[in-house]
Amino acid sequence: MTDKLWGGRFTASAPEWVQAFGASIQVDQAMAKEDLEGSIAHVKMLGKQGIIAPDEAQQIEAGLQALMTDLEAGKLHFDVKNEDVHLNMEKLLTDKIGPVAGKLHTARSRNDQVATDFHLWLMHRLPLIFDRLKGLQTTLLDLAEKYLGVIMPGYTHLQHAQPIAYSHYLMAYFEMFQRDYERFEFSKKHIDILPLGASALAGTTFSIDREMVAKELGFSAVYANSLDAVSDRDFALEFLSNASILMMHLSRMAEELILWGSYEFNYLELSDAYTTGSSIMPQKKNADYAELIRGKTGRVYGELMGMLAVMKSLPLAYNKDMQEDKEGVFATMDTVLAALPIFDHMLVTLEIHPDKMSASLEKDYSNATELADYLAEKGLPFRQAHAVVGHLVLKAIEAQKGLGELSLADFQAANPMIEEDVYQVLDPMTAVNRRQSQGGTGLSQVKAAIAKARQELAAE
Amino acid sequence: MTDKLWGGRFTASAPEWVQAFGASIQVDQAMAKEDLEGSIAHVKMLGKQGIIAPDEAQQIEAGLQALMTDLEAGKLHFDVKNEDVHLNMEKLLTDKIGPVAGKLHTARSRNDQVATDFHLWLMHRLPLIFDRLKGLQTTLLDLAEKYLGVIMPGYTHLQHAQPIAYSHYLMAYFEMFQRDYERFEFSKKHIDILPLGASALAGTTFSIDREMVAKELGFSAVYANSLDAVSDRDFALEFLSNASILMMHLSRMAEELILWGSYEFNYLELSDAYTTGSSIMPQKKNADYAELIRGKTGRVYGELMGMLAVMKSLPLAYNKDMQEDKEGVFATMDTVLAALPIFDHMLVTLEIHPDKMSASLEKDYSNATELADYLAEKGLPFRQAHAVVGHLVLKAIEAQKGLGELSLADFQAANPMIEEDVYQVLDPMTAVNRRQSQGGTGLSQVKAAIAKARQELAAE
Amino acid sequence: MTDKLWGGRFTASAPEWVQAFGASIQVDQAMAKEDLEGSIAHVKMLGKQGIIAPDEAQQIEAGLQALMTDLEAGKLHFDVKNEDVHLNMEKLLTDKIGPVAGKLHTARSRNDQVATDFHLWLMHRLPLIFDRLKGLQTTLLDLAEKYLGVIMPGYTHLQHAQPIAYSHYLMAYFEMFQRDYERFEFSKKHIDILPLGASALAGTTFSIDREMVAKELGFSAVYANSLDAVSDRDFALEFLSNASILMMHLSRMAEELILWGSYEFNYLELSDAYTTGSSIMPQKKNADYAELIRGKTGRVYGELMGMLAVMKSLPLAYNKDMQEDKEGVFATMDTVLAALPIFDHMLVTLEIHPDKMSASLEKDYSNATELADYLAEKGLPFRQAHAVVGHLVLKAIEAQKGLGELSLADFQAANPMIEEDVYQVLDPMTAVNRRQSQGGTGLSQVKAAIAKARQELAAE
Amino acid sequence: MTDKLWGGRFTASAPEWVQAFGASIQVDQAMAKEDLEGSIAHVKMLGKQGIIAPDEAQQIEAGLQALMTDLEAGKLHFDVKNEDVHLNMEKLLTDKIGPVAGKLHTARSRNDQVATDFHLWLMHRLPLIFDRLKGLQTTLLDLAEKYLGVIMPGYTHLQHAQPIAYSHYLMAYFEMFQRDYERFEFSKKHIDILPLGASALAGTTFSIDREMVAKELGFSAVYANSLDAVSDRDFALEFLSNASILMMHLSRMAEELILWGSYEFNYLELSDAYTTGSSIMPQKKNADYAELIRGKTGRVYGELMGMLAVMKSLPLAYNKDMQEDKEGVFATMDTVLAALPIFDHMLVTLEIHPDKMSASLEKDYSNATELADYLAEKGLPFRQAHAVVGHLVLKAIEAQKGLGELSLADFQAANPMIEEDVYQVLDPMTAVNRRQSQGGTGLSQVKAAIAKARQELAAE
Repeated sequence: MTDKLWGGRFTASAPEWVQAFGASIQVDQAMAKEDLEGSIAHVKMLGKQGIIAPDEAQQIEAGLQALMTDLEAGKLHFDVKNEDVHLNMEKLLTDKIGPVAGKLHTARSRNDQVATDFHLWLMHRLPLIFDRLKGLQTTLLDLAEKYLGVIMPGYTHLQHAQPIAYSHYLMAYFEMFQRDYERFEFSKKHIDILPLGASALAGTTFSIDREMVAKELGFSAVYANSLDAVSDRDFALEFLSNASILMMHLSRMAEELILWGSYEFNYLELSDAYTTGSSIMPQKKNADYAELIRGKTGRVYGELMGMLAVMKSLPLAYNKDMQEDKEGVFATMDTVLAALPIFDHMLVTLEIHPDKMSASLEKDYSNATELADYLAEKGLPFRQAHAVVGHLVLKAIEAQKGLGELSLADFQAANPMIEEDVYQVLDPMTAVNRRQSQGGTGLSQVKAAIAKARQELAAE
Repeated sequence: MTDKLWGGRFTASAPEWVQAFGASIQVDQAMAKEDLEGSIAHVKMLGKQGIIAPDEAQQIEAGLQALMTDLEAGKLHFDVKNEDVHLNMEKLLTDKIGPVAGKLHTARSRNDQVATDFHLWLMHRLPLIFDRLKGLQTTLLDLAEKYLGVIMPGYTHLQHAQPIAYSHYLMAYFEMFQRDYERFEFSKKHIDILPLGASALAGTTFSIDREMVAKELGFSAVYANSLDAVSDRDFALEFLSNASILMMHLSRMAEELILWGSYEFNYLELSDAYTTGSSIMPQKKNADYAELIRGKTGRVYGELMGMLAVMKSLPLAYNKDMQEDKEGVFATMDTVLAALPIFDHMLVTLEIHPDKMSASLEKDYSNATELADYLAEKGLPFRQAHAVVGHLVLKAIEAQKGLGELSLADFQAANPMIEEDVYQVLDPMTAVNRRQSQGGTGLSQVKAAIAKARQELAAE
Repeated sequence: MTDKLWGGRFTASAPEWVQAFGASIQVDQAMAKEDLEGSIAHVKMLGKQGIIAPDEAQQIEAGLQALMTDLEAGKLHFDVKNEDVHLNMEKLLTDKIGPVAGKLHTARSRNDQVATDFHLWLMHRLPLIFDRLKGLQTTLLDLAEKYLGVIMPGYTHLQHAQPIAYSHYLMAYFEMFQRDYERFEFSKKHIDILPLGASALAGTTFSIDREMVAKELGFSAVYANSLDAVSDRDFALEFLSNASILMMHLSRMAEELILWGSYEFNYLELSDAYTTGSSIMPQKKNADYAELIRGKTGRVYGELMGMLAVMKSLPLAYNKDMQEDKEGVFATMDTVLAALPIFDHMLVTLEIHPDKMSASLEKDYSNATELADYLAEKGLPFRQAHAVVGHLVLKAIEAQKGLGELSLADFQAANPMIEEDVYQVLDPMTAVNRRQSQGGTGLSQVKAAIAKARQELAAE
Repeated sequence: MTDKLWGGRFTASAPEWVQAFGASIQVDQAMAKEDLEGSIAHVKMLGKQGIIAPDEAQQIEAGLQALMTDLEAGKLHFDVKNEDVHLNMEKLLTDKIGPVAGKLHTARSRNDQVATDFHLWLMHRLPLIFDRLKGLQTTLLDLAEKYLGVIMPGYTHLQHAQPIAYSHYLMAYFEMFQRDYERFEFSKKHIDILPLGASALAGTTFSIDREMVAKELGFSAVYANSLDAVSDRDFALEFLSNASILMMHLSRMAEELILWGSYEFNYLELSDAYTTGSSIMPQKKNADYAELIRGKTGRVYGELMGMLAVMKSLPLAYNKDMQEDKEGVFATMDTVLAALPIFDHMLVTLEIHPDKMSASLEKDYSNATELADYLAEKGLPFRQAHAVVGHLVLKAIEAQKGLGELSLADFQAANPMIEEDVYQVLDPMTAVNRRQSQGGTGLSQVKAAIAKARQELAAE
């Protein structure tokens, strides 16, 4: 017999380093608090249901509370020999209160226990994601309001496309983060559900009260099927998928912060606090945090892919492969919970250069669509108007002029419908403000969008 | 000038094979119907708003309707020279109705057009997913009802763990597919939203009516921000993520069908219709469809990963990289829409072998937990009970006996609390039916679960 | 009995659409030529070994040659009912020469046949990769030679770091593609090996001559273990991994081409042939091909990930999951074989703007390291020199001057070691050319690197 | 000015938790030894080349040696405020020897320093991979030799296909690991190359001697291009790709160990040392290590995917995203270095059940191909022979007999060519031993394969 708590039928042990490889305590100790909470709820229920004697239940609960106090004081020490947080806790409890500790594991298994801890762990952290997402969204709204009137080139294919309001750009990200919020909010449905009581896989013969445990722990529901309860990791995959999409959004904005802070764009300057220097080049001021978050996006993707691969083709119910479910989720949570406020602070502390933004609209032909629309409004089929303007752009480039610098004669040679009023149409600020279509970059649209967004945030 | 519709300012063309590499018509022609629907709604709106003359709008609409008729009759031919489905359609329309066709593209861009087509395409197919998921779920319920009373070993780590009801196993998958259903249902929120009207990226100066277009096309909402409307592919990522999780569930059941249909397990036999033979080995009967679906799970994962990588770090708004968004989604949709009914039919047509299932419970020690619980109920701390039973198992293995074949003396030597009633406790059917905890495998629990599930399905 | 070639023991068939889902002919017909080549070599060997009669072997070979002629003339038609390219070919052969066709499949199985086709298919295409890689590398060398003397900012963190030679930049990519070349060259070892003769999985009782078949087909070796021969897909994973790394390199250069062709950088202009326009914005000239290749990089990653997921945990030997091995490899090959020459042409046809490149070095402080090194050479510990220069940069930024525009008094106030010769040190061209360390950007180093690279290419 | 070593031009700092998020010391301290080795080699060279005074070089070297001693004694303490292992070491060195420490960073940058550390770190660990791979391969050979004569069913599609030798099965994995070995060996080419001397990205103006540094550190070559030297992470991707394929192989064997150790297969029993128990089910003996390694395969895939995503589209040269290159490589190395010897020990310590293996061949029809080949040898086209045998199998199944239990009359009714000698052909051991084709499962082939493999291993 080995010295393991499950060692009744075993006669040999692996070398210590092998056991360490198999252990999960290095990772799952992050759920120590949740493990204790789950045990406390479980033992209360065992006592109330008379599955174990009330005084034993109280004794165990007191022991668990004492462990919680120790944990918060940083006094609990885990041993890799005890494999995981569950057996470590049972060992620590036994040390504290003696063999009665062995009654705690009545009517449960590590299979439903670990799932419970994991659900709880995510439950406890979802509100942080919500807060930080809303914090970032509020910052976007504040900045969108502050910079109403700042215009810049809108890009497609990284080429100047059409002039837009900087605030409109910020509001595009508000929308993305709103979808992120909705995704995490939906994911609550599959996190906020109690596995405990599934026991090993089949439920238990003891007359447990799962609803009571759920209520104690703050869960809204219990798993309807015990096999599913211990086999399911959808909630972790949903988290990783939602985090991947969120990070993708951040990576896009990071890319823009890096680009726009380059010497060539010079649309903005990040705060010294959110940049770092070079060990060799004294002039360097690098957008390190934006780059790091862009990089971490790749790692988060990797965690999603890793977990999907882990779960593929696993027969029910629990398999040890599933031990690999937590490390990636924990690391991803760290990344998300840091990346959101860092982005928030970066945006608040950076300086934009509105003059550089508007200056870059002067000779960039981003007003070409105005001219094509102008002709289309006068009845020329848009496709022909597009061709006319294409030729004018070519002509202007050769003459090293902006479109607005061409003479009326030049315009009329291209198409006689063009009149003196064309010059006003070609002004970038006019271009922005005439885009009053629903959801467009026109000032009134942007203002309305901000107002609506404020209401949405407040309602959450 | 090149012969491209956008060619006004261009003076050179790439070789044809390069253009073919850049073209998307090979893939996006799958959205031809949606492209026409979108154009019809757009031109109706242009006419109603007076952006183009009503008679022109009617002329264009008639042309588009004629193209739709041709499409349905398989008479439309696309040319890779025209790049994508949008320009192909504009070319075909021009061939049909002349230069007035050039007015169709007023106040829109391919950027919002392709996004609209893609949203519509998914909208049209979501109901098929719902139907097929419900079909599979209904089959699971029917089978769970049909096989009430069949018991088998429940597995963890692919080792016999505890006896369970086969119906309980089927219901675990019902739960998984229910979550899949909920995920796809939630994803509708981000699919059912109209991008058209965002134009290139900034909205348009024309007085368009986006709500009218949304209504025509059956969308419940319009994108609130034009930049976001053309840059967003969250809905495609959500689809791929949901499909990945669904396929993961199917891969798990596929694994079990393959295992259980093996010579060694022999718990079931798939229908000849859902197996195939070998070109060399005349006796072979392979679970080809289950294996193929398990394999396609990997490909679906790959599509998700590919699309996440495509979107990473892309600055707003549209970039050509995003052309790579559709092929993976289309292939994944094909996979999902086929895999669901194939699984449904496989389950309906396979034969289970209840006698083999129950026979394998005879000497497999899957009733060991019963004995430990029996002792725990008598007051022995569970951890000690576990150790006692572990030793008894070892003893029984050495004696090549099942636990129920040990003598009462053997039991009492291990622990004197054990009495004659132990033999009834050790019976597998008793073991199943005593697991009456909520969500457990006990018969009454399974029946209640089936009834509740029927209600849920009916309510959807 | 079904009508399948393997149908002896089967009594039911799946619906046609299900069979179509299970079939692979849509994909594996791309290997039709290789399938025929493999069969021709196999039947020659069967005849020579007397396993089938020589005249039968000749009759079969003639039939296969006739099919090859039909194939090349585009006259072969495959039927999804016949599942895959192998059974389609056997059916077509039977139609042509009658039941003797049934002797072709002696001593082989589809398991070793498909592996053989797949190996051959890759063998035939590796030389194309080598040629196109070398073509791109040669272009890089030609351009590096042509533009010797052009200097530009070298970037880290997308910030100006130090001045470099444009040719040095080009040579960095030469090195990457050289490693790609080496990887594909190494991969030949695991592609250039014959599976045929492994039969279903265990070899065969017929006295086949595998070396003869290998020689006929141009393979250098035969698989040493029959189980491995039919279970192995390492060679496909290696291909996808090598392609992923190659595409990653292209995606980096694509990113730079897109950046440098932006309005803000304006370091280069792509040829009209390798850009496309907008359907709405007449002025647009988008780096579509660079973007598409950057996007396709994500898809290639996805194919690698998909295939890794497919192969995970598959028990030996062949499983139907492995049918999913080819589609991703075929698509990836198309991508790689197109992306390489497109990049080649893009580089040849683009125009660089050396004046813009050098102009951007004027006030960008990318010469700050020169000054720190200057001080370090005079004995100041580098770390202190770094600090001194950092302060000078801050001062220069405030004064809106370049470092070289500060007065000698300014310099000496910062550190009295600085003397009049500092101004020469700060000149960007001097900065480039003084970096004569091995592998550095100094002119002599770049020239030497080009010469060495020419020799390497010639030696391959 | 901040207190950073690069802080000359900076005026503000991020909050501490943000700095901690940006820091890499938590991860890159694993390369502390390599960092010191690199610095020692660098300073020796600086001294020898007269870039810094010889006595200063000696002083610095002595300081670094003292740090190495402290490191080995576990006395070095790193501070997250100093970001990474490089700046921590410079700080510790400064504390030890004063400002002269600032001369160490002459003519280098963290960009080439971190790349050097990373290359060295991998160089130091490759030999461990080689040793452990060879250890596992040697075990496979020993077992293949030991169990010559044990036969079992060979599987395709997890169905009994044909009888094979257990030793032949083991040798299939020998081949896979041999390819793994070759891949890691090839990867040495791109690991064993020195980046140092590339400095920030462009080389340096100091007259460094890179060959000397390479020699000191044991590198065979130096990077030919300084930009490439600091931008390249191919070697890390190659490692992750090679590790992914290796783990895929292990996952396949793990799957088989788990299957074969199941109650149903019962082909083998793992040692107690390589299994674990259940916290609730006293009888359980789970193949935890095999499952864990199968699971970790998914995580390793995820690391590869993550790193590929990180590197995609990064412009040259160093970007902070690349800080995310190490954590996944380090974790993967841990996994690989543990998984190989664990597999080795698992194989050595498990017991196979040859009687169960051979018993399962009795009525499983895995000898059907023998009969088809028998008929083909007599001149019946194989395709017809296949059909004849298919029918016989169906008949035998109905009669619940093995093929060898059919009467000669039964055989001759199916095909009159069949004679009395058929019974010998149908014997499983005959079936195995008649497969004498090259690489087949016949005894002489397996023996030859073992002998050849021994030679290959010895030659490495």
